Amino acid sequence: MEGKEEDVRLGANKFPERQPLGTAAQSQDGKDYSEPPPAPLFEPGELTSWSFYRAGIAEFMATFLFLYISILTVMGVAKAPTKCGTVGIQGIAWAFGGMIFALVYCTAGISGGHINPAVTLGLFLARKLSLTRALFYMIMQCLGAICGAGVVKGFQKTTYQMVGGGANFVNPGYTIGDGLGAEIVGTFVLVYTVFSATDAKRSARDSHVPILAPLPIGFAVFLVHLATIPITGTGINPARSLGAAIIYNRDKAWDDHWIFWVGPFIGAALAALYHQVVIRAMPFKSK
Amino acid sequence: MEGKEEDVRLGANKFPERQPLGTAAQSQDGKDYSEPPPAPLFEPGELTSWSFYRAGIAEFMATFLFLYISILTVMGVAKAPTKCGTVGIQGIAWAFGGMIFALVYCTAGISGGHINPAVTLGLFLARKLSLTRALFYMIMQCLGAICGAGVVKGFQKTTYQMVGGGANFVNPGYTIGDGLGAEIVGTFVLVYTVFSATDAKRSARDSHVPILAPLPIGFAVFLVHLATIPITGTGINPARSLGAAIIYNRDKAWDDHWIFWVGPFIGAALAALYHQVVIRAMPFKSK
Amino acid sequence: MEGKEEDVRLGANKFPERQPLGTAAQSQDGKDYSEPPPAPLFEPGELTSWSFYRAGIAEFMATFLFLYISILTVMGVAKAPTKCGTVGIQGIAWAFGGMIFALVYCTAGISGGHINPAVTLGLFLARKLSLTRALFYMIMQCLGAICGAGVVKGFQKTTYQMVGGGANFVNPGYTIGDGLGAEIVGTFVLVYTVFSATDAKRSARDSHVPILAPLPIGFAVFLVHLATIPITGTGINPARSLGAAIIYNRDKAWDDHWIFWVGPFIGAALAALYHQVVIRAMPFKSK
Amino acid sequence: MEGKEEDVRLGANKFPERQPLGTAAQSQDGKDYSEPPPAPLFEPGELTSWSFYRAGIAEFMATFLFLYISILTVMGVAKAPTKCGTVGIQGIAWAFGGMIFALVYCTAGISGGHINPAVTLGLFLARKLSLTRALFYMIMQCLGAICGAGVVKGFQKTTYQMVGGGANFVNPGYTIGDGLGAEIVGTFVLVYTVFSATDAKRSARDSHVPILAPLPIGFAVFLVHLATIPITGTGINPARSLGAAIIYNRDKAWDDHWIFWVGPFIGAALAALYHQVVIRAMPFKSK
Repeated sequence: MEGKEEDVRLGANKFPERQPLGTAAQSQDGKDYSEPPPAPLFEPGELTSWSFYRAGIAEFMATFLFLYISILTVMGVAKAPTKCGTVGIQGIAWAFGGMIFALVYCTAGISGGHINPAVTLGLFLARKLSLTRALFYMIMQCLGAICGAGVVKGFQKTTYQMVGGGANFVNPGYTIGDGLGAEIVGTFVLVYTVFSATDAKRSARDSHVPILAPLPIGFAVFLVHLATIPITGTGINPARSLGAAIIYNRDKAWDDHWIFWVGPFIGAALAALYHQVVIRAMPFKSK
Repeated sequence: MEGKEEDVRLGANKFPERQPLGTAAQSQDGKDYSEPPPAPLFEPGELTSWSFYRAGIAEFMATFLFLYISILTVMGVAKAPTKCGTVGIQGIAWAFGGMIFALVYCTAGISGGHINPAVTLGLFLARKLSLTRALFYMIMQCLGAICGAGVVKGFQKTTYQMVGGGANFVNPGYTIGDGLGAEIVGTFVLVYTVFSATDAKRSARDSHVPILAPLPIGFAVFLVHLATIPITGTGINPARSLGAAIIYNRDKAWDDHWIFWVGPFIGAALAALYHQVVIRAMPFKSK
Repeated sequence: MEGKEEDVRLGANKFPERQPLGTAAQSQDGKDYSEPPPAPLFEPGELTSWSFYRAGIAEFMATFLFLYISILTVMGVAKAPTKCGTVGIQGIAWAFGGMIFALVYCTAGISGGHINPAVTLGLFLARKLSLTRALFYMIMQCLGAICGAGVVKGFQKTTYQMVGGGANFVNPGYTIGDGLGAEIVGTFVLVYTVFSATDAKRSARDSHVPILAPLPIGFAVFLVHLATIPITGTGINPARSLGAAIIYNRDKAWDDHWIFWVGPFIGAALAALYHQVVIRAMPFKSK
Repeated sequence: MEGKEEDVRLGANKFPERQPLGTAAQSQDGKDYSEPPPAPLFEPGELTSWSFYRAGIAEFMATFLFLYISILTVMGVAKAPTKCGTVGIQGIAWAFGGMIFALVYCTAGISGGHINPAVTLGLFLARKLSLTRALFYMIMQCLGAICGAGVVKGFQKTTYQMVGGGANFVNPGYTIGDGLGAEIVGTFVLVYTVFSATDAKRSARDSHVPILAPLPIGFAVFLVHLATIPITGTGINPARSLGAAIIYNRDKAWDDHWIFWVGPFIGAALAALYHQVVIRAMPFKSK
């Protein structure tokens, strides 16, 4: 039993993260495929396990570092008079996508490596984790994002406010509907990749698939940024949008803010639906 | 039998995708190499299997997302007055190549992850899938591409028409022959990579090769874009060219349109020929 | 016994590098997880083993090549009148991150692939290598860095002095505290990735994790450069900062030089602490 | 016996490529490390084996595609009035490095995936292949390179001559010695990565290392281009330099041409020496 060696026993410790993302998906015994049972909605015993709180801390830390690096990169580009002397918009896309790659790789074994409330929602809808855990993760992600953006503002307060601080809003020339649509499809791409790359069935058949899982997931984030930075600055992660909005705290950021929760949540739900209904054909399956 | 657990039984379900691309190529039993028998031209039983239709839906969805992200990236660059404030031409190349990487990774286990009628043709010529399936895939790919480009046009109709909507045509300074040649060699690079990376013989010998297969395939697409965007905007995928042409629907796009079917199909056929004759030495082999 | 075949016997040769980074982490027998015992502070027998000196030479060579390629890339960008005709700031970030990826991949099996005194310190604090070895590595890294920067200066002495020679200092518009903070968090990101990607516990559970370890480590370096080049030019590696400072040798480089030792060492220590206390929960564990 | 199924029997067929690069290095039986015996200088039997000629064709094809894509990318950047509307110098570096990644991945199992006379020389000096095979590879690589550059010139003859056709020469501001030095160290980085990534000893210990081998090798090429394009345009591959020089055929390309043979050959020899003497400690080993 791996759990025995790993976790400090605060309590029952019978509640490791179910179906963690990324590399850790491999930890299932043997290679035969078996659908894990859906996670219960509430699992009170989790609350007395150290691994539960450690997972939350890992989500906090990962989202903190994600915002710190990505918003600092945005700042470096935004404040420069000419973009040629900076890493450019493409560099911003690499910062977001690359951090997700590295952080999913690093935290997959601890918390599943969500780093994004939309991913947590998608996996919750597919019943991969309990409601308790999903809510705890979302709160920790939002706190981490606020701290990450806050530290960046600490470097150069005035410039931060002047250039927008990486906050998301719908750019001129696009309607609210465009912004919402871009967030829905963008998050669909991300959560669809998460489901495809970590499907337990694939793990069983191609035993080494999970190794690379963080790479396509990071690439999905990179690619959505390439495409939708001109429209909304690209959210597809409500914690990232909330963190930047709270620290920037101007009307411009708050007016459109609902888009960056509603859009990602709809996109994540559609991806979960697509995966469960079309790819896994759950509803049509007999026991 | 994996099929038993996976597929909704609409019918015989004895017709899983043969020789799927990418990671799923590993699903062959054991490690010993054995040439799979060529796929029959018509396999009527396929038509009653859910896995057949699911594969088609997966091809549709993947080509839809491919066009959506890549054409949206093209739009962001094309409409900007100065390219320095955008992800640049290199960013466009990443969008096309990166999406192919992520999507092949995600759909390899479902449909083989073709996302391109030229790839489907190449694999059909090597008798890796039936004619029925090849035609079905091509139709779904074209439909997906049309929808993907359509959604992008939905964001900004006027701008879309003004900047060309990512449609392929031979750029000024190049002849029709140049464009055709660039498409032939470019598609050869792609389909040659597909064959090399997913060769069953390699899978047998280096059991982990297929894990990385989507990466060189995506890179091949990226690299051909780096080289031939200045010539034709880079097609090497008839569904992508058709989708953009139908949604753009101007003479400029239709005049050269045949190049983006004939070129890729010749390139894919040459790559299949090269692989079967030179690398596998099929014609010289005794039974 | 692998050691028997590999190493020239100068002496006892019972002291292979413990817990090497990267791919070699897989060399532990079996898949069951067992905490290796902490490395002793002094291991005099090491000093008579060829593998000890070879590891030092490998660290020297890797840091030499690291500085050579990265500082030469910096030079190419710095001396150009317009950045558009160069690989740009993003290219500089790729040079630093990409070299770390390739060099960790190449030297992980020989020395553990540290190439950075801050990484060596972090691993020493976690008791993964002896003090003797840690000091020897740091000296070899600094010597390699000085030689690497020296060769670059050899190409164009005047230009080198004019454009700053890749030396690190706090850029105008930022305070000393900003620079120190940026170095601390940046090194934390790197060393946190090193610990996460090479954790023996992960290796045991996901047996193939270490394969990819050099990739997230290289990406971490790339990403920190994207974010903090505008602040300090990005050190996060005292050997790299020392090498550039000694070869450039102007007051500007020496005045802030302490930041590029204190910052990385604090960041590395915090990452080691985070990993041991939060992720591994060492202090709370019973024997 | 793998050979039995694979190769058309023209003759003895007892002479498969020894120690192929990249992924195929895994084909050794078992996991125990054993130093393969050095390849004989002449192996006349090879000449009657189909696998020998096939390997040569694969080297030709790979070098052809390498030059085609990379020189075409150079052309697109070189002829543009402003680099911002192109993939930029960084895009050129990606084209060279990315093609090496994809092509080594694709041809490693057929010919070892050298695609570069300097790599062939380095492996020959380490006695990984016979002199017959080494010379045959070098000839095929040069022929492939000439054809690849020729096709690119075919697209736009006048422009090709005007912008230099990707030919290598020492740029103004650098001495002949600088150019030679840059080629020596650059090729050292490449061949050092080739040796490290494909070392049979590593394969034995970390059984999955070779999977990723093409990635650091491709990255090494990318990184050397980032650093030395401003100095020589980056050769580090005599076939690539010869192909471009023959097709361009102006004094400027021929005057410095010796540098792009002497430099890479010295660099490759030094890397072979370093690996055999320092890393493997061959000379000090007892039988």
